Amino acid sequence: MISVAILGHGVVGSGVAEVLLQNAEPIAEKAGDSLVVKRILDLRTFPDLPYADLFTTDFETIVQDEEIRIVVETMGGLHPAYDFVKACLLAGKSVVTSNKELVAAKGDELLAIAKDKNVNFLFEASVGGGIPILRPLSQCLAGNEIESVAGILNGTTNFMLTRMVQDSMDFESALKLAQDLGYAERNPSADVDGHDACRKICILAALAYGKHVYPEQVYTEGISAITPTDVKYAEAIGRVIKLIGQVKRQGDRIQCMVSPLLISKDNLLAQVSDVFNAVQVCGNAVGEVMFYGRGAGKLPTASAVVGDVIDAAQHLTERKPLGWDAGFADYVLDHADNECAVLLRFETNDKQALLASLGSALGDVSVVTCPDAPTNELAVLTAVMSERQLDNGLAVLGDQPISRLRLL
Amino acid sequence: MISVAILGHGVVGSGVAEVLLQNAEPIAEKAGDSLVVKRILDLRTFPDLPYADLFTTDFETIVQDEEIRIVVETMGGLHPAYDFVKACLLAGKSVVTSNKELVAAKGDELLAIAKDKNVNFLFEASVGGGIPILRPLSQCLAGNEIESVAGILNGTTNFMLTRMVQDSMDFESALKLAQDLGYAERNPSADVDGHDACRKICILAALAYGKHVYPEQVYTEGISAITPTDVKYAEAIGRVIKLIGQVKRQGDRIQCMVSPLLISKDNLLAQVSDVFNAVQVCGNAVGEVMFYGRGAGKLPTASAVVGDVIDAAQHLTERKPLGWDAGFADYVLDHADNECAVLLRFETNDKQALLASLGSALGDVSVVTCPDAPTNELAVLTAVMSERQLDNGLAVLGDQPISRLRLL
Repeated sequence: MISVAILGHGVVGSGVAEVLLQNAEPIAEKAGDSLVVKRILDLRTFPDLPYADLFTTDFETIVQDEEIRIVVETMGGLHPAYDFVKACLLAGKSVVTSNKELVAAKGDELLAIAKDKNVNFLFEASVGGGIPILRPLSQCLAGNEIESVAGILNGTTNFMLTRMVQDSMDFESALKLAQDLGYAERNPSADVDGHDACRKICILAALAYGKHVYPEQVYTEGISAITPTDVKYAEAIGRVIKLIGQVKRQGDRIQCMVSPLLISKDNLLAQVSDVFNAVQVCGNAVGEVMFYGRGAGKLPTASAVVGDVIDAAQHLTERKPLGWDAGFADYVLDHADNECAVLLRFETNDKQALLASLGSALGDVSVVTCPDAPTNELAVLTAVMSERQLDNGLAVLGDQPISRLRLL
Repeated sequence: MISVAILGHGVVGSGVAEVLLQNAEPIAEKAGDSLVVKRILDLRTFPDLPYADLFTTDFETIVQDEEIRIVVETMGGLHPAYDFVKACLLAGKSVVTSNKELVAAKGDELLAIAKDKNVNFLFEASVGGGIPILRPLSQCLAGNEIESVAGILNGTTNFMLTRMVQDSMDFESALKLAQDLGYAERNPSADVDGHDACRKICILAALAYGKHVYPEQVYTEGISAITPTDVKYAEAIGRVIKLIGQVKRQGDRIQCMVSPLLISKDNLLAQVSDVFNAVQVCGNAVGEVMFYGRGAGKLPTASAVVGDVIDAAQHLTERKPLGWDAGFADYVLDHADNECAVLLRFETNDKQALLASLGSALGDVSVVTCPDAPTNELAVLTAVMSERQLDNGLAVLGDQPISRLRLL
């Protein structure tokens, strides 16, 4: 029998308890021993639950209990999650977490402590919810040099963008619907401004390239500026708008950013709708692979957590080869060096004149027409260029675009 | 330094040698030690290769070499691959294989020997080429009861069906093109008759449900009977035809089959084109997840093999928790008990009379119209029913359909 504690009985924590109980028999068979939840830390009590007597408000009863070998952290946020997880690792317990904020901010430090204490720190659930992605990336694709990772990493914004494309909603209506359905928080900033996706691409980048990437190093742009006209232009060029986190290796450094991108309909990512997530990995041997599934939700996320708990139970006294080193200041290339083609929309009453100026400011551009666009608008597609080149060109031009959408 | 031997220097074996050389540095970092190819078994010689001196035609120099801890088998076929792999496991070496025929036929026996000898027998490359699927299924989704697995498991037939749908080719032209491009063999039976997909669904089923499934237990139907008219009818009901291997749990038994299925365009499997493969897994916690990528080819398959080699190197003295027990005679339910809705096409000069008879023979059916169909044809969609019910109904009816396509 292996005793497990769960920190936080919210959506994910209660899901973990449920899955451990409901699938107890096959889980014991796979883990090689029965997994028993001994304590659940929460400030609330749940008198009606069959396991009501497991609850405690005192973290010390968990960290000091030598019988508890595996601790699941599903509280979210940095504090006190960080302090608790660190204390558990230092006490020689393996820790499984679904907390992407924690892993993105403190992963390198916590992995180093786990290594030092010869225990495991596992976090499959922190990216892509229930989708197996971190283990496949670090183990199955270990024979590859990873060339790039790109993913739809936030289900809430993907749901909203799907409604904006399929039902012609504007941003505000899509947000309201997402909030009404419980997909978006009252304060939706973490989702719609891209911070959640940013944490996840940081974790993927760290695993793919071996160095910690801190969220503050990553250019992050959300979807709040996307308009129905942008959606129509995307359609006009055979693309859809998705919020994408992406990372690419550039020599000893990486390029990494989160932003809305225009994805070709030929790319399977364009077909990923509603709250689903997907991660595309390109390796020098395997080519392109993609992982798809529910990126959030109680049971999908619990599925990933429990997979890690079983793995931790199978490896109580040995280390899983999973981790990365600390990052450094200029490890992530300046956003100004990021390169792509861009769709620019301008308001103008003299399209011919603007087009001529655009040619001299930005080089060759191709005009994009869109049936329903306002008549006083000019839209063009640039060649692939760096953000710096584009900014410099636009500064020369004088006119600023009303919309600037990158292509994947 | 860990010494590795490769049995067979064909497409996959040469890819493995190439990846181990090309990515040697990151591989050594991940494996915790350098991996060096010491011997390659092949009847041919390759004097121009930089590693020409590694070749041998004598298996005994490999199996008796105690320095060789990991053996890669990429010969394909049952003999002598089975004899060689068995001898290596018995000699205490871990074995990594890409050979689906071997795993589907002898997996239970070889896994038992590996367990007995405390070594690893790994075969990620045997299903889905480079796509990580076996490890995610057995580890990341370990917290789930697997409800079903369904996949496009054969790239050759998926390429052919894609051409039949997108370019309106008939079966023969699509086969000729696949042969000209090197995707299909001169004798294409293993692909087009579904045997290759059958071996792969057997492996997936064994891993998902813990018991060996033998290919002869699985109803297997290929794509050679699919006509351009079938493709048009599929389009008419918003579906596409894909060759699918699927397995579902039914109590203590499983349903398992390989056949062309009509897939709704809303299902991401319908979007998987050309030589790509994809596997959809449904778990009781995670819901639906999908894995997508190149299911064959030199480097994609080598990628999966090398991932396993690294894993084996990390676990030279301990067992990976991967495997299943022997199967038994009636473990796979009779095909007659498999249930689905079916699209039936009949040749008839009296549609009204046939439709009336169909109603009494098969219960409610709905008529399907297709713009380009021959005028002397009636097509109907049945309710969900078992193969037995359908066969019995058709026997009562007297008329046999010219085409019978199941829906997923």
